[in-house]
Amino acid sequence: MRLTVYLSGEIHTDWRDQVIAACADLNVDFTAPVTDHAASDDCGVAILGAEENKFWHDHKGAKLNAIRTRKAIEEADVVVVRFGEKYRQWNAAFDAGYAAALGKALIILQQPEHDHALKEVDAAALAVTRDPVQVAQILRYVIDGSLPG
Amino acid sequence: MRLTVYLSGEIHTDWRDQVIAACADLNVDFTAPVTDHAASDDCGVAILGAEENKFWHDHKGAKLNAIRTRKAIEEADVVVVRFGEKYRQWNAAFDAGYAAALGKALIILQQPEHDHALKEVDAAALAVTRDPVQVAQILRYVIDGSLPG
Amino acid sequence: MRLTVYLSGEIHTDWRDQVIAACADLNVDFTAPVTDHAASDDCGVAILGAEENKFWHDHKGAKLNAIRTRKAIEEADVVVVRFGEKYRQWNAAFDAGYAAALGKALIILQQPEHDHALKEVDAAALAVTRDPVQVAQILRYVIDGSLPG
Amino acid sequence: MRLTVYLSGEIHTDWRDQVIAACADLNVDFTAPVTDHAASDDCGVAILGAEENKFWHDHKGAKLNAIRTRKAIEEADVVVVRFGEKYRQWNAAFDAGYAAALGKALIILQQPEHDHALKEVDAAALAVTRDPVQVAQILRYVIDGSLPG
Amino acid sequence: MRLTVYLSGEIHTDWRDQVIAACADLNVDFTAPVTDHAASDDCGVAILGAEENKFWHDHKGAKLNAIRTRKAIEEADVVVVRFGEKYRQWNAAFDAGYAAALGKALIILQQPEHDHALKEVDAAALAVTRDPVQVAQILRYVIDGSLPG
Amino acid sequence: MRLTVYLSGEIHTDWRDQVIAACADLNVDFTAPVTDHAASDDCGVAILGAEENKFWHDHKGAKLNAIRTRKAIEEADVVVVRFGEKYRQWNAAFDAGYAAALGKALIILQQPEHDHALKEVDAAALAVTRDPVQVAQILRYVIDGSLPG
Amino acid sequence: MRLTVYLSGEIHTDWRDQVIAACADLNVDFTAPVTDHAASDDCGVAILGAEENKFWHDHKGAKLNAIRTRKAIEEADVVVVRFGEKYRQWNAAFDAGYAAALGKALIILQQPEHDHALKEVDAAALAVTRDPVQVAQILRYVIDGSLPG
Amino acid sequence: MRLTVYLSGEIHTDWRDQVIAACADLNVDFTAPVTDHAASDDCGVAILGAEENKFWHDHKGAKLNAIRTRKAIEEADVVVVRFGEKYRQWNAAFDAGYAAALGKALIILQQPEHDHALKEVDAAALAVTRDPVQVAQILRYVIDGSLPG
Repeated sequence: MRLTVYLSGEIHTDWRDQVIAACADLNVDFTAPVTDHAASDDCGVAILGAEENKFWHDHKGAKLNAIRTRKAIEEADVVVVRFGEKYRQWNAAFDAGYAAALGKALIILQQPEHDHALKEVDAAALAVTRDPVQVAQILRYVIDGSLPG
Repeated sequence: MRLTVYLSGEIHTDWRDQVIAACADLNVDFTAPVTDHAASDDCGVAILGAEENKFWHDHKGAKLNAIRTRKAIEEADVVVVRFGEKYRQWNAAFDAGYAAALGKALIILQQPEHDHALKEVDAAALAVTRDPVQVAQILRYVIDGSLPG
Repeated sequence: MRLTVYLSGEIHTDWRDQVIAACADLNVDFTAPVTDHAASDDCGVAILGAEENKFWHDHKGAKLNAIRTRKAIEEADVVVVRFGEKYRQWNAAFDAGYAAALGKALIILQQPEHDHALKEVDAAALAVTRDPVQVAQILRYVIDGSLPG
Repeated sequence: MRLTVYLSGEIHTDWRDQVIAACADLNVDFTAPVTDHAASDDCGVAILGAEENKFWHDHKGAKLNAIRTRKAIEEADVVVVRFGEKYRQWNAAFDAGYAAALGKALIILQQPEHDHALKEVDAAALAVTRDPVQVAQILRYVIDGSLPG
Repeated sequence: MRLTVYLSGEIHTDWRDQVIAACADLNVDFTAPVTDHAASDDCGVAILGAEENKFWHDHKGAKLNAIRTRKAIEEADVVVVRFGEKYRQWNAAFDAGYAAALGKALIILQQPEHDHALKEVDAAALAVTRDPVQVAQILRYVIDGSLPG
Repeated sequence: MRLTVYLSGEIHTDWRDQVIAACADLNVDFTAPVTDHAASDDCGVAILGAEENKFWHDHKGAKLNAIRTRKAIEEADVVVVRFGEKYRQWNAAFDAGYAAALGKALIILQQPEHDHALKEVDAAALAVTRDPVQVAQILRYVIDGSLPG
Repeated sequence: MRLTVYLSGEIHTDWRDQVIAACADLNVDFTAPVTDHAASDDCGVAILGAEENKFWHDHKGAKLNAIRTRKAIEEADVVVVRFGEKYRQWNAAFDAGYAAALGKALIILQQPEHDHALKEVDAAALAVTRDPVQVAQILRYVIDGSLPG
Repeated sequence: MRLTVYLSGEIHTDWRDQVIAACADLNVDFTAPVTDHAASDDCGVAILGAEENKFWHDHKGAKLNAIRTRKAIEEADVVVVRFGEKYRQWNAAFDAGYAAALGKALIILQQPEHDHALKEVDAAALAVTRDPVQVAQILRYVIDGSLPG
């Protein structure tokens, strides 16, 4: 079994690298959004021309990013969404809802202090994990049936 | 033209009442989540029995609420998602993503200070509004073509 | 909010009547399979002619019943599946899988001694209930937000 | 023609090995659930942490298994469901219903004493077989048109 | 339960009237193609102008008829396809294939001498009937569970 | 048979009124875009606030109009697209493509001098008409099988 | 561009070989039903055991063939349906309807004397051809834009 | 990430070559309609035989071209639609509508003087570009996150 896994959400820690490294020997194709924060924010105006109004500046960039993220979610077997400690991360929750509506297998990665705030998101998931190790263990189990330890 | 409109998001202000009142003379069927905060939090254990672990307490409730919210989103022509001043409101962003993936017409209601944080959500919307009056004006225009003033 | 609810599974107790009676004042349209056991078993040959081979006798009947059950599942907002004390009830589990694949809200009604055997079915459900009262309470909560007691 | 075939159901006999061995020279990609009974039962708590309540122990595991089984069913051209002599096997019937709703070609493998109990499941299938040899013969015929003997 | 039933196929006998009359007391909405043979053949040129080439004469008419037949098949719960004694009736078989691909419940009405020629069509049906009485009996059973006699 | 018909395209002649008047005795629900040209152009800024940049002025309005037009196309059984004598009318061709991809029955209303330029659009249609009378005659024939004259 | 092309219909002439040979240098994957008439008729009983009743003999075989034909149609970009001189060929028309409902590009291959009887089928096609050479020329044009002569 | 990109619209300038050349080092599969104007216009009659009536001459050709263009749009991740300086280009707008209804990521390439006429098309797009360089820059950013300069 080969999995395509989209790693959505927080871009300020190395959680993606941890998951990918722990799955190095598995049949997994990982995809992700552009994780360079500045590029992600400014791509629209950098390519399509400056906007005076910050709203449209953001709008043009968010739409370019949507080309990548929607394709990645639609092609994924599993969508992992990481909610970090900082920021509002509405785009992470948006991705989770988008994936849920498409029937994707959803894995949430978040700390217990957010359990109540994320209860609707967690209720749509097939697993709620606490660290990247658990995410990697799930992917390994799904692919070859082996468990940790 | 008759519209079915789901009013998602913030439950601590009277924005839903304002929209509904302003559309009283229009062919609109409004739906909404359960907006009684306590009932929404505790419905799972109130009906299905207590849980020691708060995670499962929340989980059982969130799943019951999902019966209502998914039906309402799937039947809606327009999904309005309100982001308020408080709380993380990940369920609002989740609903927006869910609606977007289903191709629903999405209207966001939020203040300018959240524009940057909501740029991915806004990019999937057909309108970004600042108050309930604008939401009602859009619904009126869509139904009968009349504009304010 | 108006719900269409399909009541699948066990046909030898009055659980359907209990659910329906408890929802008498609600906006719910209930559907069900043909619950006359003899008619359900023999409908095929009664209408289309006798079969020497019992397999085809059953086959003709099961296909006629499928006209009704598939339509009912496809039109349902909520599918309730009751697993009783007796018989193998593979058709109940089949209906649950069918409903799950269509994205229907699934409510399971079963006793704790079957929890382990039904864990895959329960994992696809939005609620696992123990008696018809709980099913009715869920439907009431989904429709008008009111809780028992 | 190349087929992807999901082998669902009974995990306590070697029927999968027999089908696979008999198709060794054919263009078939076989998939299956995790067939290590203990791993399948305990995967949830082994990765995500222990649960006091057996219901949630089972629930966490069943959801991890669903990541694998749903992907496998959705990608399959043919879903073979084996009903064995023992256990209630509601998950097998659930898989059959799930596959039927997705329009998959369904092959049932079961003994005649279960014909009546499985009549609704059989009615949704394109073949009802009695041993793994027949399953393999069907796959061979579908791929290259050759018949046994 | 209310059924929408499309009556496809042969237009030279009164089989539709027989089915409809026998279901007069049931909740069934019947639809059908235009059964006036001359109108059906000539509608294209009668409305859109004459064609020198008979192929395009037929083509314009067949496309107008498709507006009606496709809508009717798509909205039907049950599609009954009658193969009569005369003509090649490829449009009947085409409707059956169209309905089958949409997952409609298919009932075939034909005489035994055509069983072999229709075996692929019959294999996609939930019932193969021999006269309009059987069709009506099936619809009655599906709606209220009552059997003849 | 009852039809829902969306009348797309040209807004500067009374073709919609002619079609609607000629179908006054038929079971047809007609829908249309907002046909007040000024309102259609300015709705976005009238409700959501002025834009300095004409591109965004247009953008906000076009998105509000899309709420209405997409709902109308998705709910239509038949989409009639009128190409007039003036303007580029790319929105009419866009609607035709949108309707074609959704499998809607498409009727084009245009003059012969545009036949070559519209050949791809016409090839996706079930009828190419020259005046509103023909459109109305088609709708009448589809509903009750009667032909002109 | 690479095409997958299903060649449906008549199995008593070498039309498939002619199309395949004429496309030998093109990126086309051809699929077809089992064209050994005896194997196709008897596959069901040969694998699954004899039936006294000829109807069920045919039924078991037709369902096995459906595993192959439905997969092939669903995976095809283009479905070519050949109507020959002999037999009723309802399965060919059924395949055409099935393909049309799935939105497949349909090419019909038939002689002019059947034009009227096939007008509904032809109306759903993107080309009506008279010999295998035309079919191959279309596939060549679609792939690389080159025309005959 | 690998993209499949359909380049629709204007065929009289070298804009496709410019986009393709600028993406030569990227994982992009480009598809396009037949861009030989004469072949595209006459393919129908060249293969299927002459037509006296120019309408049917065009019709036969447009349908053959549809085999290619629909497959290409359906398989594309991104659809780029170029509106040039000349001709009415209704087929370009039709393709844009078709792609939008399928949920494809849409990039429009057009000059500012057409902004108002294309506002409905632009409103459905994820980017509005002014030259082939911008199109290529977007594809590069989507694939590897790098920005110009």
